[in-house]
Amino acid sequence: MKLYGYFRSSTAYRVRIALNLKGVLVKHVPVHMLRGGGEQHQPAYRAINPQGVIPTLVDGDVRLGQSLAIIEYLEETRPTPALLPADPLDRARVRQLANIIACDIHPIDNLRVLTYITTRLGASAQQKADWYRHWILEGFKAFEALIADDPRTGAFCHGDQPGLADLCLIPQVYNARRFDCPLDDFPTIARIDAACNALEAFRKAAPENQIDAPPAG
Amino acid sequence: MKLYGYFRSSTAYRVRIALNLKGVLVKHVPVHMLRGGGEQHQPAYRAINPQGVIPTLVDGDVRLGQSLAIIEYLEETRPTPALLPADPLDRARVRQLANIIACDIHPIDNLRVLTYITTRLGASAQQKADWYRHWILEGFKAFEALIADDPRTGAFCHGDQPGLADLCLIPQVYNARRFDCPLDDFPTIARIDAACNALEAFRKAAPENQIDAPPAG
Repeated sequence: MKLYGYFRSSTAYRVRIALNLKGVLVKHVPVHMLRGGGEQHQPAYRAINPQGVIPTLVDGDVRLGQSLAIIEYLEETRPTPALLPADPLDRARVRQLANIIACDIHPIDNLRVLTYITTRLGASAQQKADWYRHWILEGFKAFEALIADDPRTGAFCHGDQPGLADLCLIPQVYNARRFDCPLDDFPTIARIDAACNALEAFRKAAPENQIDAPPAG
Repeated sequence: MKLYGYFRSSTAYRVRIALNLKGVLVKHVPVHMLRGGGEQHQPAYRAINPQGVIPTLVDGDVRLGQSLAIIEYLEETRPTPALLPADPLDRARVRQLANIIACDIHPIDNLRVLTYITTRLGASAQQKADWYRHWILEGFKAFEALIADDPRTGAFCHGDQPGLADLCLIPQVYNARRFDCPLDDFPTIARIDAACNALEAFRKAAPENQIDAPPAG
């Protein structure tokens, strides 16, 4: 299997964590999102992902896009270790948390939307930064409220094993830090972020540890 | 069960279709998204949905937000008729299609983002309309490319029974029409939209048929 990704793409980052947690080895194929107007828009990549977005999982003739669809597919075909709990209500809780990030934060803050607000709506650098933080803070407020006092929250978002909600959360926290978004109001998120980043599966998936990351220093 | 929704909310519309397809009766509780600065932001609603977004499914003490999490929950607890196919690759295809709408079109075009671009970025009415259409067209191009020539597409997005991809698509087509978004380039989407709207489950879920819709005329 091959994963077409980009070191800083948080949707690719999610899938990398899932693959690592499940011990699935893939070949990583970098798609440079900034070079040449974005390699993801070019015909070679559009041929495997008509939407021109990262990531795509390719397995023989099969091409799967959309990170959550890919992760649910991995969960159904390689069920151990589970990324979703067994009980339907618990699964719904985890999916609700995941979707707060995957639907209501990340798509509004991603590169193509930031490009639109700066180039077509004339947003300044400050307005762009405010936009970025606004949607993270809105989403994190809800996320924190849902996990802070819920007895189902454990060392991780749901219980004591990392799962779907965690692997959506951690790349978003990474982005929040990168853009100086204050996290003081989110102690449970910060605690879970630390617990996840203590695990090899999460660390190996981090942007700086990808083959297309620029050299440190 | 109760569904907190709003007649024009396309995420509530998705859930209404799912409930109708599965024959699940719920009490519909309107939350007026425009009145008084938005009833969804007020403490009474935030107490059941800390994110302050529509919809929420309430079943006794259980409160579920995020339309896709709700629909997956309905699918797991009331499996007939199925909204997802049986095969994992087919399920991934349907979820990819659903997420193109649910992650990459709808959240960027929803009320709170439109309010932000007009009030804080100074977007004009024309710029707002352009924004709205831009994200629909981007997403529909990919959606059409994925369904147009795929032998798995049938009368509906996947085969000959309506499912998760259809119930995300149809509310988005409804919005596209409402905002005069040209659909000429999307013949497969238009065909499936007509097939869905011929079904009672979809028609009953349409905005104009909700208890909180304003009188016609």
